[in-house]
Amino acid sequence: MASTAEHDAMRRALAVAANGPRGVNPQVGALLLSPDGHVLAEGWHRGAGTPHAEVDALSKLAPDAVRGATAVVTLEPCNHTGRTGPCSEALIDAGVARVVYAVSDPGDHSSGGAARLREAGVDVEAGLLADEAAALLDSWLTVQRLGRPHVTVKWAQSLDGRAAAADGTSQWITGPAARADVHRRRSETDAIVVGTGTLLADDPALTARRPDGTLYEHQPRPVVVGRRPVPSGAAVRRHPLPLATDDGQDLPALLETLRQQGVQRVFVEGGPALASSFLRAGLADEVLVYVAPVLLGGDRLSLRDIGVTTIAQARRLDVASTIPLGDDVLYVAALRQAQGPDEAQGPEEAPEEGDD
Amino acid sequence: MASTAEHDAMRRALAVAANGPRGVNPQVGALLLSPDGHVLAEGWHRGAGTPHAEVDALSKLAPDAVRGATAVVTLEPCNHTGRTGPCSEALIDAGVARVVYAVSDPGDHSSGGAARLREAGVDVEAGLLADEAAALLDSWLTVQRLGRPHVTVKWAQSLDGRAAAADGTSQWITGPAARADVHRRRSETDAIVVGTGTLLADDPALTARRPDGTLYEHQPRPVVVGRRPVPSGAAVRRHPLPLATDDGQDLPALLETLRQQGVQRVFVEGGPALASSFLRAGLADEVLVYVAPVLLGGDRLSLRDIGVTTIAQARRLDVASTIPLGDDVLYVAALRQAQGPDEAQGPEEAPEEGDD
Repeated sequence: MASTAEHDAMRRALAVAANGPRGVNPQVGALLLSPDGHVLAEGWHRGAGTPHAEVDALSKLAPDAVRGATAVVTLEPCNHTGRTGPCSEALIDAGVARVVYAVSDPGDHSSGGAARLREAGVDVEAGLLADEAAALLDSWLTVQRLGRPHVTVKWAQSLDGRAAAADGTSQWITGPAARADVHRRRSETDAIVVGTGTLLADDPALTARRPDGTLYEHQPRPVVVGRRPVPSGAAVRRHPLPLATDDGQDLPALLETLRQQGVQRVFVEGGPALASSFLRAGLADEVLVYVAPVLLGGDRLSLRDIGVTTIAQARRLDVASTIPLGDDVLYVAALRQAQGPDEAQGPEEAPEEGDD
Repeated sequence: MASTAEHDAMRRALAVAANGPRGVNPQVGALLLSPDGHVLAEGWHRGAGTPHAEVDALSKLAPDAVRGATAVVTLEPCNHTGRTGPCSEALIDAGVARVVYAVSDPGDHSSGGAARLREAGVDVEAGLLADEAAALLDSWLTVQRLGRPHVTVKWAQSLDGRAAAADGTSQWITGPAARADVHRRRSETDAIVVGTGTLLADDPALTARRPDGTLYEHQPRPVVVGRRPVPSGAAVRRHPLPLATDDGQDLPALLETLRQQGVQRVFVEGGPALASSFLRAGLADEVLVYVAPVLLGGDRLSLRDIGVTTIAQARRLDVASTIPLGDDVLYVAALRQAQGPDEAQGPEEAPEEGDD
């Protein structure tokens, strides 16, 4: 059982964790408590290549001041020698008697710290305020689980699935509330990916802006995919973050590159060809579909071929929410894993006839 | 002010109106009350070519028994000589002193009865229980207003607007709750129109069935549109109502034919070509879109060309409701009149850039 002092320390550790940058490494906080529950030191992780939170806290104390102390950490101490040594060994060496942590490390290389600590006789307690810590680490944990950044594919469409009218015009498909929602969600993502077709047609700024036009504090980095060059006068060249380009021939490699640059969440914003490519490659975790109450008909489709050849391969969505935005509706949905024919609904539930 | 006796009489008139058949003529009920409020006679309209409700009630009394009476009628007495004489004249001739009616007659030819009655010195009161009467006459009033039956175009689609996967398979796009809803709504319509493509592909029965497979009491009549013949073994040939066929070259003429046969509400159920034809011709009043939470991509579209060439011509929908049906969502929406460019949203609300 964690003590009241340890609870309080974990709350503080979560607060200091948020001081660190979001990126390729997790945001982690750590406190060292004396045996009677007083705070000896606090530390947090300042980004790739810098000391982990536990080591940051340890570094603030004289070596003998830590003996018998309790370390309270938001993430399981690592057991991995990367650019820094393993935190589990550092805690053992410092004579820490007890470690309380919130979330287990899901990494193949970095996990095992708790076992190592126990092996060395340290008292270990896991799971204190785990939900709060998991929320803070959400994107990072997702990247660990997926092995790549989380990908959201977003598009706006008419109810009948069109991105534009026959002549290519598309303004006013969705209204101001939907556009404001897109920008707010952009401000929570790390990169926006668009195709050169969209870039050349719409000249988007790819910034995250408030309705009054000002920039949100956190901006996604702009990524343009395709073989055609980005014009020198393109609006995206005035983006506060540097422009990345990619030929789009290897989307997993693009995502790996982004991951290494600290991108945890990617927005794929268009157009139809690029969105379809991500879906076809099985690289979409979530879709955001802004549906306007209009019918357009014609051949300007929001999606093209996504690799579904027969109905049993339909990409089923787990719709988390449908959110009214003015006249429009936003579908927020996760993609289920593709069903094989064996898992599709069987003929025992079949109606008597076709679509009747 | 209508008296309590007149209120009671109107409720009874509405009840007896429903005895008449739904069809090309309205369901109307009439009661004749003595000056002290006793019911002298009641009548209702039994269909085209038979006496109107007022005349039906008058016919049950000796000529002198009506003098000074009050007629309570669910629809404004007609002023039109069709296959029967004008009711306004019949009421005047019978010496009726007062007429209370619920709903005004919207017909170009038949309206004006109230004015004629007043001209002849009859005391006239309009609007008693008008909402209830309008609800009873809903479909008939719609036909009067539109000059044709009310047309609902229904389809099922994936979220991205597809009717089927690339190989044409479409079962399981929508679930059992959506299918049951379709059948219930079929039971409230007078005709189902399908194209020969759908007929040949799916062999639909075009009946309205309960989930247990039994037929609803009211069945829509089946109408097959197209140039290809209906196979002799087609399921639709076993429909309880006779099959109508039409080459589909003149949809307004088809609707006029159906109207003359008493059809007030038409369901256009497929496929994509026929649905698009009705939308393109401006002959759709309502759409029912059953949206399944799946993505299909590909080219099997729920709608094709509906005549929209630029975004200002988008067919805007007034969405009356979005109804969850199992995992699916039904959009019930009315079509707004097509907007001209002048009525489209103006550039003063334009964002800075394309779809960004």
